[in-house]
Amino acid sequence: MARPLELHDDRLFPADAAVRGIARELYGAVAAMPVISPHGHTDPTWFSLNEPFGNATELLLAPDHYLYRMLYSQGIGLERLGVPSRAGLSAADPREAWRIFAANQHLFRGTPSALWLAYVFSKVFGFEVALEPETADLYFDTINEKLASDAFRPRALFDRFNIELLATTEGPHETLRHHHAIRESGWKGRVVTAYRPDAVIDAEHESFGEALETFAGLTGQDVHDWAGYLEAHRIRRAAFIDAGATSTDHGHPSAATADLAPAEAEALFDAIISGGVTPERAELFRAQMLTEMARMSLDDGLVMQIHPGSFRNHNRLLFDAYGRDKGADIPRPTEYVRALKPLLDAHGNDPRLSIILFTLDETAYSRELAPLAGHYPCLKLGPSWWFHDSPEGMRRFREQTTETAGFYNTVGFNDDTRAFLSIPARHDLARRVDCSFLARLVSEHRMSLSEAAETAVDLAYRLPRAAYRLDAPALSPQTLTA
Amino acid sequence: MARPLELHDDRLFPADAAVRGIARELYGAVAAMPVISPHGHTDPTWFSLNEPFGNATELLLAPDHYLYRMLYSQGIGLERLGVPSRAGLSAADPREAWRIFAANQHLFRGTPSALWLAYVFSKVFGFEVALEPETADLYFDTINEKLASDAFRPRALFDRFNIELLATTEGPHETLRHHHAIRESGWKGRVVTAYRPDAVIDAEHESFGEALETFAGLTGQDVHDWAGYLEAHRIRRAAFIDAGATSTDHGHPSAATADLAPAEAEALFDAIISGGVTPERAELFRAQMLTEMARMSLDDGLVMQIHPGSFRNHNRLLFDAYGRDKGADIPRPTEYVRALKPLLDAHGNDPRLSIILFTLDETAYSRELAPLAGHYPCLKLGPSWWFHDSPEGMRRFREQTTETAGFYNTVGFNDDTRAFLSIPARHDLARRVDCSFLARLVSEHRMSLSEAAETAVDLAYRLPRAAYRLDAPALSPQTLTA
Amino acid sequence: MARPLELHDDRLFPADAAVRGIARELYGAVAAMPVISPHGHTDPTWFSLNEPFGNATELLLAPDHYLYRMLYSQGIGLERLGVPSRAGLSAADPREAWRIFAANQHLFRGTPSALWLAYVFSKVFGFEVALEPETADLYFDTINEKLASDAFRPRALFDRFNIELLATTEGPHETLRHHHAIRESGWKGRVVTAYRPDAVIDAEHESFGEALETFAGLTGQDVHDWAGYLEAHRIRRAAFIDAGATSTDHGHPSAATADLAPAEAEALFDAIISGGVTPERAELFRAQMLTEMARMSLDDGLVMQIHPGSFRNHNRLLFDAYGRDKGADIPRPTEYVRALKPLLDAHGNDPRLSIILFTLDETAYSRELAPLAGHYPCLKLGPSWWFHDSPEGMRRFREQTTETAGFYNTVGFNDDTRAFLSIPARHDLARRVDCSFLARLVSEHRMSLSEAAETAVDLAYRLPRAAYRLDAPALSPQTLTA
Repeated sequence: MARPLELHDDRLFPADAAVRGIARELYGAVAAMPVISPHGHTDPTWFSLNEPFGNATELLLAPDHYLYRMLYSQGIGLERLGVPSRAGLSAADPREAWRIFAANQHLFRGTPSALWLAYVFSKVFGFEVALEPETADLYFDTINEKLASDAFRPRALFDRFNIELLATTEGPHETLRHHHAIRESGWKGRVVTAYRPDAVIDAEHESFGEALETFAGLTGQDVHDWAGYLEAHRIRRAAFIDAGATSTDHGHPSAATADLAPAEAEALFDAIISGGVTPERAELFRAQMLTEMARMSLDDGLVMQIHPGSFRNHNRLLFDAYGRDKGADIPRPTEYVRALKPLLDAHGNDPRLSIILFTLDETAYSRELAPLAGHYPCLKLGPSWWFHDSPEGMRRFREQTTETAGFYNTVGFNDDTRAFLSIPARHDLARRVDCSFLARLVSEHRMSLSEAAETAVDLAYRLPRAAYRLDAPALSPQTLTA
Repeated sequence: MARPLELHDDRLFPADAAVRGIARELYGAVAAMPVISPHGHTDPTWFSLNEPFGNATELLLAPDHYLYRMLYSQGIGLERLGVPSRAGLSAADPREAWRIFAANQHLFRGTPSALWLAYVFSKVFGFEVALEPETADLYFDTINEKLASDAFRPRALFDRFNIELLATTEGPHETLRHHHAIRESGWKGRVVTAYRPDAVIDAEHESFGEALETFAGLTGQDVHDWAGYLEAHRIRRAAFIDAGATSTDHGHPSAATADLAPAEAEALFDAIISGGVTPERAELFRAQMLTEMARMSLDDGLVMQIHPGSFRNHNRLLFDAYGRDKGADIPRPTEYVRALKPLLDAHGNDPRLSIILFTLDETAYSRELAPLAGHYPCLKLGPSWWFHDSPEGMRRFREQTTETAGFYNTVGFNDDTRAFLSIPARHDLARRVDCSFLARLVSEHRMSLSEAAETAVDLAYRLPRAAYRLDAPALSPQTLTA
Repeated sequence: MARPLELHDDRLFPADAAVRGIARELYGAVAAMPVISPHGHTDPTWFSLNEPFGNATELLLAPDHYLYRMLYSQGIGLERLGVPSRAGLSAADPREAWRIFAANQHLFRGTPSALWLAYVFSKVFGFEVALEPETADLYFDTINEKLASDAFRPRALFDRFNIELLATTEGPHETLRHHHAIRESGWKGRVVTAYRPDAVIDAEHESFGEALETFAGLTGQDVHDWAGYLEAHRIRRAAFIDAGATSTDHGHPSAATADLAPAEAEALFDAIISGGVTPERAELFRAQMLTEMARMSLDDGLVMQIHPGSFRNHNRLLFDAYGRDKGADIPRPTEYVRALKPLLDAHGNDPRLSIILFTLDETAYSRELAPLAGHYPCLKLGPSWWFHDSPEGMRRFREQTTETAGFYNTVGFNDDTRAFLSIPARHDLARRVDCSFLARLVSEHRMSLSEAAETAVDLAYRLPRAAYRLDAPALSPQTLTA
């Protein structure tokens, strides 16, 4: 007999009855609030074309590196899981891949993936039994059948998920035609883009040269000239703003910034563009470009997001065979205090600038990030990120940042996901964990219940709207909690 | 209608009823014990002159960088908050500054500042409604009125706060006349000094040259000569001991120590004093001076305190306009194991030496500091410091140090504050958090209730007295818990 | 009247009644399971000779650096505690040493030593009163009397402790005659060895030259020749496998690995062996040898254990007087992501390779180790180690690794001890803490009770058997939880 699928109403709340009661009350007021998703990696073509998703494996397993990296860590090859490689699509039978996934659910015990999957299986697809070998085919067939129905097309799910805003991420070398198509379609869903220029800023990126060419083509600029290169950024930023963007996003190996004299910056650019890329020059150029991006933000108002600290594509053989983003990106120690100083010295006190910082190195929370965000007007802390987008990770984030930075130098939740169906699961999890943290403060008489209730709403809804400037004019702190 | 001001009797105790009951019992036995404040930054003139404090803004907001850095982080300029700048006193209306503070109390939710303020407002001033825009003027007027009364003069508050000993911090280039005046006044309050020689040791300190001149004047030594410079330290240390000092305090960027051969040390000093200051020489000189200070402590018995790891004055524009200590000091990663080895190799096993270590880098607690303090006879751990002087910070300190260093290689609480009115609030908070930690150990049967009761008293009272050698002769571990 | 000795049935379980009930239920099913001890430092002569242990001080205090380092940290000289020095055996009266230990039990409050001792005193020796000055002699006499009885000989205790397998650690330069003697004795206890080649790999080890000579003698190889040196390793590994070894163990200062071209590796070896040892060469050689060891593991199947990050013999004077392993080894920051890349690039995807990683730097748990183990098929995480083999340390390990690596990339518990009598205490503690963590997940509806029950058994028994390849063939993940 199949095990029941559990999705308890009190999941993620603290065990103590009194604290749980408070958490439940706080959560009750935010559970149904609209989802604000200002940072993520969903595919805009889903919403422009609104075609049905494929099968269970293709939608849920093969694109989700959280899932297949765990299977891979136990010796299960990616070729068995339907993951496409550089050689092309996987030859694996989707049903067989799904069965392997079903047989290894124990690997996900205690992980956020297990919680997200339970939500998706229960709330989105309506299963009442758990996924295990005996139910693998039931799951596979049921999911596929539902996906073929109109109610499971992307726009229908978007509406059902109560998403108020969803941001995707595009590069300046990419067209925004799917965003335009969405706008022109008359559909009311608010899907916007975000400006992620890594491919044209990171000279060590494998697509750097190719991306630059497209960047030139799209802007009509000579991007091999420093002034033309900067102008091309300005042009594309304006185009992104026109497609709804309110933010930029920068995924660098470190948080290094630089503020070179103009002639030095130009000489550095010239050296790189003429083929003289060294690791040191590439790092300095990325650093300089963060400051250049900040300067452009002073003019056009785009909020900056800095996501540093991942050693990308750590597994050489896997990268050679499968390419980027295959679950082999590993965090490294990340320093912020010296790294950000050049940018902060230049523009750190300018009220027009807003920078949201993320980290994969939790040691920076209490030591560096909360003290920085608790002082500089331009800095805010993004939520716990990637590996730390999890109940324990979120709890550590709040425990280690709140006492120094407060709640109001944070920006609410980002789902940061390409797994569209998991979006409501992730926001629900974040709201539950935040309400649990607040409930502990209330139960320990460190905050009143009314303050906690106001803060819960701010974290779920008002702070992301304000931090990502989704309204004009930006909310002031006072109006925030009014 | 104004919200009530909450200061619950069970605040900060764990929510679980059984654990809370134990915490309450442990706390009950230490709540009324005298305050030992062996490390802090109050102004001795308060106690020598005993003049009334000024208004609410001047006393509570403008000097407290915990408060105004948080307001500043949300874009509220220091000039609006009454904070004096290099240009002189602030032109802000104190009442207007107070109103801004009142309107932004939500920023402090979840921070220790909120807890300290609630204590001060409730216990010291007797408010029963919370500070918010509607009560800003009530607060401002009531506080000012009370401050004008005799019961709120410094000495009266000192007595009311049940302070058994209060240490201030002075430099060797500063006179101790206010300490002498206190002694000569006949008032019985025990206010002592501590020897903080950073300004005459740190060649990168902006007042280094000036401080050296005064140092020479006060000691009659040629402080530009290595032997004279060291002799001047000995002379001032003796004067500080005469003014009640039992400790020195060293706030360095890193924990580096050195033990150069005498000729090398002298050559380094000569290079620095003749204008050859480089970052490397300044660092090495600070390192060498920690070992020199340790050697002097072998003779005169002063306990050393080492407070490393802060990047001072990180915000360049703010430093230029407002000067030091304006909430822009940011912690950095801090290494202890290699850094302290030269000093420890020289004197680490000498029973006459006692060094209290602090950190802003919590990663060192379990990795470096607890193993060091759990082995070396000369090392003890100071309490969680600065940004970590908070409920979560204190909890992490105990959770991450106790299993390796025990309780008896720690020294009880330091308030480390210049906010005099917050002293009882801070000690009360520390006692509550320590009792909560002990209560958890008792409830999990990891310690008996009688052991926890003894330990609670040791943490609140006996350990600081012993660690700071406030009695002669020093207490041995056995007598400690007798 | 003496205080009772407490060893509560619910010790270490969370205080909340509901969570405690779940923890108790989970623990009930694993409490009596056999002990698997695949990594430790007990003395094989105990089991080959089966002679009675000496007195209480000699057995419990003098060899246990957890205990005497804490006493030393409070100024109690090792010479008073019966600890042997380079000059020979201690002249201290064992009874006097025991009395000092008894008088300082408060130092261990809140430490795992206190919990292990309580278990040993209560369960192994049957005491009902606590150790304190008044009971010091009672303890000393009772323990000595019991140790003289047959029931307290090593083999009898081994059986009583329900140990299914116990691994000791030997170097390739040591004979395995005690292991052979155990086998030949007909006694059924499974005591195996593990291959710890540090002394012949670490050119900075004080016994390097001497160990190499014995290594040559035992293998008949020219170990001063690169090929002969590697062949000698293969010969000794085979001999260790014959004596039951299933693993190697590598205690290096860092986690550095290297994969030099063969000619480079040989040149490096030649430089070292001909007396050209520098810190850089020694580090590179240790790094290269980890990869060489991995290559040999591909052939002979030994599981690798890497234990990096300790600064050995930090206290110079103590090392000079007392030698190695005297409680003065201090952890340092330890990096894994770049360090392991050369080895992983070479063999990280080979299903024949299994590497168990340990750390003394808890910051690596969530940042580096869990992401690495949650991806690479060859990597698993060893339990929280040394200073972190404690309730809070184990809790942090689970909280910081599970969400990314799951439970099934960890290997269960290692006691890692030379304190034989503490083995059941340590495993009992680990099982209680793991069950408490699982109970929290169940109570927060993050895992079902049946999943938790299965996982508890896996952590206590199945995972160590599988990870250390104690059965042939190795268990697959599916059979693991079948």
